[in-house]
Amino acid sequence: MTQPRRTVIVGGVAGGMSAATRLRRLNEGDEIVVLERGPHVSFANCGLPYLVGGVIEDEGDVLLQTPGSLAARFGLDVRVEHEVVGVDAGQRTVTVRDLATRTDFDLAYDNLVLSTGAAPVRPDLPGIDRALTCRDLDDVARIIASIDSGARTAAVIGAGFIGLEVTENLVRRGLAVTLLEAAPQVLGPVDVEMAAPVEERLRAAGVTVLTGVRVVSVSDDAVVLADGTRVAADLVLLSAGVRPESSLAVSAGVEVSATGAIYVDDGQRTNVANIYAVGDAVAKRSPYGLREVPLANTANLQGRRVADVLSGHEPQGRMTRGTAIVEVLGTVVAMTGDSERVCRLRGDEIRVLHSHPFDHAGYYPGAEQMALKLVVDAASDAILGAQAVGGAGVDKRIDVISTAMAAGIRASDLAGLELAYAPQFGSAKDPVNMLGYMAENLRDGRSRTVQWHGLDDEVAAGAQLVDVRTVAEFARGALPGAVNLPLDELRDRLAEVGPRVVVYCAVGQRGHVAARILAQHGIEVSNLDGGIRTRLAASGRLPSWRS
Amino acid sequence: MTQPRRTVIVGGVAGGMSAATRLRRLNEGDEIVVLERGPHVSFANCGLPYLVGGVIEDEGDVLLQTPGSLAARFGLDVRVEHEVVGVDAGQRTVTVRDLATRTDFDLAYDNLVLSTGAAPVRPDLPGIDRALTCRDLDDVARIIASIDSGARTAAVIGAGFIGLEVTENLVRRGLAVTLLEAAPQVLGPVDVEMAAPVEERLRAAGVTVLTGVRVVSVSDDAVVLADGTRVAADLVLLSAGVRPESSLAVSAGVEVSATGAIYVDDGQRTNVANIYAVGDAVAKRSPYGLREVPLANTANLQGRRVADVLSGHEPQGRMTRGTAIVEVLGTVVAMTGDSERVCRLRGDEIRVLHSHPFDHAGYYPGAEQMALKLVVDAASDAILGAQAVGGAGVDKRIDVISTAMAAGIRASDLAGLELAYAPQFGSAKDPVNMLGYMAENLRDGRSRTVQWHGLDDEVAAGAQLVDVRTVAEFARGALPGAVNLPLDELRDRLAEVGPRVVVYCAVGQRGHVAARILAQHGIEVSNLDGGIRTRLAASGRLPSWRS
Repeated sequence: MTQPRRTVIVGGVAGGMSAATRLRRLNEGDEIVVLERGPHVSFANCGLPYLVGGVIEDEGDVLLQTPGSLAARFGLDVRVEHEVVGVDAGQRTVTVRDLATRTDFDLAYDNLVLSTGAAPVRPDLPGIDRALTCRDLDDVARIIASIDSGARTAAVIGAGFIGLEVTENLVRRGLAVTLLEAAPQVLGPVDVEMAAPVEERLRAAGVTVLTGVRVVSVSDDAVVLADGTRVAADLVLLSAGVRPESSLAVSAGVEVSATGAIYVDDGQRTNVANIYAVGDAVAKRSPYGLREVPLANTANLQGRRVADVLSGHEPQGRMTRGTAIVEVLGTVVAMTGDSERVCRLRGDEIRVLHSHPFDHAGYYPGAEQMALKLVVDAASDAILGAQAVGGAGVDKRIDVISTAMAAGIRASDLAGLELAYAPQFGSAKDPVNMLGYMAENLRDGRSRTVQWHGLDDEVAAGAQLVDVRTVAEFARGALPGAVNLPLDELRDRLAEVGPRVVVYCAVGQRGHVAARILAQHGIEVSNLDGGIRTRLAASGRLPSWRS
Repeated sequence: MTQPRRTVIVGGVAGGMSAATRLRRLNEGDEIVVLERGPHVSFANCGLPYLVGGVIEDEGDVLLQTPGSLAARFGLDVRVEHEVVGVDAGQRTVTVRDLATRTDFDLAYDNLVLSTGAAPVRPDLPGIDRALTCRDLDDVARIIASIDSGARTAAVIGAGFIGLEVTENLVRRGLAVTLLEAAPQVLGPVDVEMAAPVEERLRAAGVTVLTGVRVVSVSDDAVVLADGTRVAADLVLLSAGVRPESSLAVSAGVEVSATGAIYVDDGQRTNVANIYAVGDAVAKRSPYGLREVPLANTANLQGRRVADVLSGHEPQGRMTRGTAIVEVLGTVVAMTGDSERVCRLRGDEIRVLHSHPFDHAGYYPGAEQMALKLVVDAASDAILGAQAVGGAGVDKRIDVISTAMAAGIRASDLAGLELAYAPQFGSAKDPVNMLGYMAENLRDGRSRTVQWHGLDDEVAAGAQLVDVRTVAEFARGALPGAVNLPLDELRDRLAEVGPRVVVYCAVGQRGHVAARILAQHGIEVSNLDGGIRTRLAASGRLPSWRS
């Protein structure tokens, strides 16, 4: 009998474990060894912030498997607290350190799969060692211990997805939290007017949100900013992003990008024979080149894919666009594809649409309003990205648009999607359909819009600003310099308009009707996209690519 | 100055009103007349059942527009209680009856748009005149009046979408409801094992559900069935489907189908010059020929399309697949495309998949389990249809799959969709991704399944039935004739298996792992698709196309 083939997998979470279990299902005879540096495998790291807040009560809930359960079910040889410290690609061996006994040994492999993940970025600042992270169960234990021992103030450094989730859960535990972000806004991947409602929500919950600040040091009781401000912090949480953990790969001669992400082909092969890589450590193919997308679903898919390749099944190449979602104290933000910022910086010719639909029919109780944004390629009408912020139904709309993007459905064709409608779940014209209608009007030149960040330029260039809301709405507050011509009176008051105007209303719908009336009377008219609501959302800030 | 073009629209709800408002936005100078037989235009008929139950408290909430508001905003000439009683297509005039004054007059048109909708099917039975319907606000008023005057029992004839929604709301009002359905199951468009949980929910709420029964007459206090049963019914509600209301069209020489649906081209043109039709009265193009899809979103889309055509913009042709959803006392059922029944009756070679995922990560509180079903073309891997029943997240999965179908994404490619994941919203492998993984395994021959309705044949043909759940699960109840070989012991007990087996577990996942083990040891094995849960869902009934 021949020796069974041995596959060694480095890293026992997400991508690594998906690879191991799929490989077993395809190859009953293989030897499969999973080496994990930490004390746990196959745990749900996306649940960690909620352990801090007590939303998830029991640490055991996020431990999906154990080495024992994986041996029984899948015949896997899973070893925790075993770190791979060296690779000899020529001899096809790894050097493994048993962290419990502090002994090293060599292990031969036929194939090596690197699922080494990403490590938190830890800036080199005085005192930063005190800062905790939230990447594994030990981290969670440390955070909880700090709270239990009396921490009352916390500073969270970095307002990305994890930073926001941890902030929410520290608030839940009663801490006074200051959120520190070097960028001018929270949630950098999302455009500023879509991220701003999250800041608003955080502030309403008592969180101090400081954007555009630089941390220079951490003291025993505070975080110190470049301007000298001392932010009281019994607990310091570092969530300033991650970088691919690829030092082991590099030591084996594997090629990585400038940012350290491992290059792989569509079959997850590195440049070194018999070495594969998956997950957060890997550079993913996007429509605009390689990028890092540290998301669990991508890791799982790649894990499965490498198992297929090791079993002789070559997968199709596939783009990664990145779809992400985060809930912060009841406010939900989700995105897919590229932001307006990314597209503008790249120099794309784009069209941008904002709407403010309700998640379901307004006449059925409980409807919640969201903001939706679509970024469209001006030449092809292709969807480049979408964002949403609100409550119920945000996840559904982004998932539908992500699916449409994957399939190459164009923006205007969103109008024709058949989405499930009953008044509890949507509208006869779903928010996604409405985006399609809006995109079609823009594509066909039947509407012309001005973005919230372009309005001042239009007015400076001499455009009249016309508020088409009701007299009562106008009286409660309007944009500076606007005249009020309510939509339902507009046909009778054409003499007061023009010859060049920007119209606006609350969210853009009445503005569109007004613009159609005026355009057909020969007036040069634009509608403020997303209405006063989008304009005011960014609270006076301009997008970074304009400043 | 030339006379403005006059478009006359018959019917002022959904499709008709979408046509009118879009036409105005595109053509400020047109004369647009909307003639509505009833007392209201532009009301939300999907909200009517919830007015009965008091979920929507105020009738005004479903009245989205009035003739006055439409005149002010869109310059529309909207006349309620005006019925079109004749069309002279040669002269291009309609004869209009003012129902208030009982006078007739002729009105010339340049273009005529028929949005006459559908009418409830009213079987010719003794006493049926007493039965109420739920199609407009007058109907709702009659139902509420009946309840207010003391109705305590109700019989609902027809267990389709509207019948179920009305049933829910009569239960809400405290009535003892009997639901009567001629077919062997509720919700005919959905396969029996997916519809059965709705029956279960109804029964749990005290509703008497009688399927496979025939109503022969209605008396003063009861509905009488063919077997003589008298169903007590102070209130009788008829919801036995609708038929296209096309008599006016026919009188104008418009061609209709055998079922009375108006034939139109991709531009909504009938065979008669200058006569167009939209909405429930119209036959829609589907991938398998024409069909009637009485849904508000389709009507709205067609209304918009006809306005485009009347403005010189030819739309693209488009398939209608039909995506629908209904909530019944907290249980949600949704579907898109064709059911297994329709495909089997058509003779399609198909693959069918069932799963029972949670709407979000099981480790995050509040996860709800659903049943998901996918019907796939065996030759092309194209998705033919999908169904889901459960609670939270059902709508999202069906919308994603509907979008995938519209774009021609194949079943296996659902695996690669990037769907928004945080533990509140989904799983790292979303239920839709998992369907893709399952479809890929079936496509590639890496798994073989037997359907719940095919299991008995397999066992009769000599297959051993192996329950791979735990000993404790098996002890709580198993399928007749099954032996228990827990999955985690299977590799050690291969001698007890085969040579031909069907394995099963609770939902099919462990069964799949077991089948992979056994297949690689040369055993001829199938996995019970959807596990014991799908098998038991239909409560012993077989699908109608098998009996």
